Amino acid sequence: MRTTSGWMSTDGTTALRRVRIERRDLRDDDLAVRVDYCGVCHSDLHRIGGLLGEGPLVPGHEFTGTVTAVGAAVTAFSVGDRVAVGTIVDSCGVCEMCRIGQENFCYEGPVSTYGGTGRADGAKTQGGYSREYVLRDRFAYHLPDGLDQAGAAPLMCAGISVWEPLRAAGIASGSRVAVAGLGGLGHLAVKLAAALGAEVTVLSRTPGKAGDAHKLGAADTLNTGDDQQVQRARGRFDLILDTIPVAHDLSPLLHMAALDGTLSLLGYPLEQPVQILHLARGRKKLTSSGTGGRRHTAELLDFCAGHGITADVEVLPSARVQEALDRLGRGDVRYRFVLDLSDLDRPDLDRPAHS
Amino acid sequence: MRTTSGWMSTDGTTALRRVRIERRDLRDDDLAVRVDYCGVCHSDLHRIGGLLGEGPLVPGHEFTGTVTAVGAAVTAFSVGDRVAVGTIVDSCGVCEMCRIGQENFCYEGPVSTYGGTGRADGAKTQGGYSREYVLRDRFAYHLPDGLDQAGAAPLMCAGISVWEPLRAAGIASGSRVAVAGLGGLGHLAVKLAAALGAEVTVLSRTPGKAGDAHKLGAADTLNTGDDQQVQRARGRFDLILDTIPVAHDLSPLLHMAALDGTLSLLGYPLEQPVQILHLARGRKKLTSSGTGGRRHTAELLDFCAGHGITADVEVLPSARVQEALDRLGRGDVRYRFVLDLSDLDRPDLDRPAHS
Repeated sequence: MRTTSGWMSTDGTTALRRVRIERRDLRDDDLAVRVDYCGVCHSDLHRIGGLLGEGPLVPGHEFTGTVTAVGAAVTAFSVGDRVAVGTIVDSCGVCEMCRIGQENFCYEGPVSTYGGTGRADGAKTQGGYSREYVLRDRFAYHLPDGLDQAGAAPLMCAGISVWEPLRAAGIASGSRVAVAGLGGLGHLAVKLAAALGAEVTVLSRTPGKAGDAHKLGAADTLNTGDDQQVQRARGRFDLILDTIPVAHDLSPLLHMAALDGTLSLLGYPLEQPVQILHLARGRKKLTSSGTGGRRHTAELLDFCAGHGITADVEVLPSARVQEALDRLGRGDVRYRFVLDLSDLDRPDLDRPAHS
Repeated sequence: MRTTSGWMSTDGTTALRRVRIERRDLRDDDLAVRVDYCGVCHSDLHRIGGLLGEGPLVPGHEFTGTVTAVGAAVTAFSVGDRVAVGTIVDSCGVCEMCRIGQENFCYEGPVSTYGGTGRADGAKTQGGYSREYVLRDRFAYHLPDGLDQAGAAPLMCAGISVWEPLRAAGIASGSRVAVAGLGGLGHLAVKLAAALGAEVTVLSRTPGKAGDAHKLGAADTLNTGDDQQVQRARGRFDLILDTIPVAHDLSPLLHMAALDGTLSLLGYPLEQPVQILHLARGRKKLTSSGTGGRRHTAELLDFCAGHGITADVEVLPSARVQEALDRLGRGDVRYRFVLDLSDLDRPDLDRPAHS
């Protein structure tokens, strides 16, 4: 076994503890990655709070780093390569979804980067709030030259989570896209949709976001708290990406979706009551999705390299992880916290994981 | 005013009364139509029972007939023409939906064939369970030669209700379509999807429908009460047309929808709880729609004429309307009742509508 340091949630609070954790010895198709930067995702907060599972764990599922060792059969990566890793570190590889590059929908269940169960050894996965990660080479991606390591980390969860629905809906020049919620996912949705050629509108209940929205590439903002604005936007959007992370009324959003348009729920994936008549009038589609598979992830990184797109991030030393989580919980972030894990190289603070 | 005879719901029961009703004098763009055959739709039953509005009315919104008089400005129809009329008899004509031929989604609300409110005179519309109907020429369609009048009547509601979602989903040769519920809508969905080249599967909890399904053009049947069959059909269907007219669990249907596939709810358009995670895993779409606009309706009639498609109907004299409604309520129909209105030519039984 290899050992490294990480930040572990133990008691349901954001006061993570610095601990010593184990990583497996490299299998033939494994990489060891020194984690340089790891984004702080809203689902980390959900998981820490018990909404998406319980028990102690190291969160973090969007990170960039540097290859430090490769297994005997690895040919696509070398020591020193810059890589990016997202929310999935393994899948069955043989089901219909895996065969077409949608490992995120693997019929046997993809192995999550943290809180998952290893297919080969049954071990619980521990995430990227740590200095080293070991994973199958299939689920690491070369980080294209020119993409900043810190700004690229959030592409691997926030970015791919909005990229897949943009691509599935065929968004291109002339499309009209709305983005509800201007956080980690939302701000990348604006950048990516605009770069695809869409006319982008930011939907918000918070006045004063217009300046930010325009800087990100939006053509327009719309206050969803103003019923007249909502009424006037009837049938306007081909695709609405809803990144709001709490339950809310879908009716105004469906009202603004175009004939055959799509409302994609990305922020709050739990049960909701749906007025089917609001879908019927205009044949509107309600959908959702979850992160992305290898095909779209590789495509996203290429696209971002070509368009110079990364997340707008606030980088903190990993020792300030609690501050990042607490501010994220209050919505006080523009637009993604990224932890710099290099402070974990000082080994003196580590405690065993289960002391 | 003109007078005619019709069957009116007065007390919330299926014991409709034969009454004398008025039709307006012809405006310049009006047709008078002798109603020959009118289909009996499940929504007639809902309306009679108070689920879709209250108060006395004459139901019926899928009928075929013969033009008996035309207004001064009518050029597209002549006395003696065979015509078909569906669920909509007027719309604003100028909104975005009307301009593209989706009058069923008119932003001012389409005028329903019964229970609607006339745009010009505010009069309540009375439906096709009657011997004469007067309507704007725009909302009458020439009944193509070769289509049987009785069998064609259900195309105008049941048929168009499944045709629009089939077309919106781009169903063509090689598509995999499932149809849940083998009633008026369902049996036409099977015929139309098969004629479009799709491989059609009938979903049912009633064993023994396989023979019927095959006769209609289905390649296969699947018992949704058998969990193993449902599990094996994971991700199988590009489009599932759900015509079941009561609330039911959507989870097994979503399980069987393909990646980016669509579940279209056509039989029960009220509020339902939806597990968003069941949409997320496979980016599945939940949608609905309501009847159809002029463009798709005209297209449907052409298609049916080209493929020799009409509904499988049981024709009853209109005086037996209660029997038709009661048997429909019990699901005892293969697959659509159609009333023959010619028995209303005997005038001696009429009572005033509000005696």
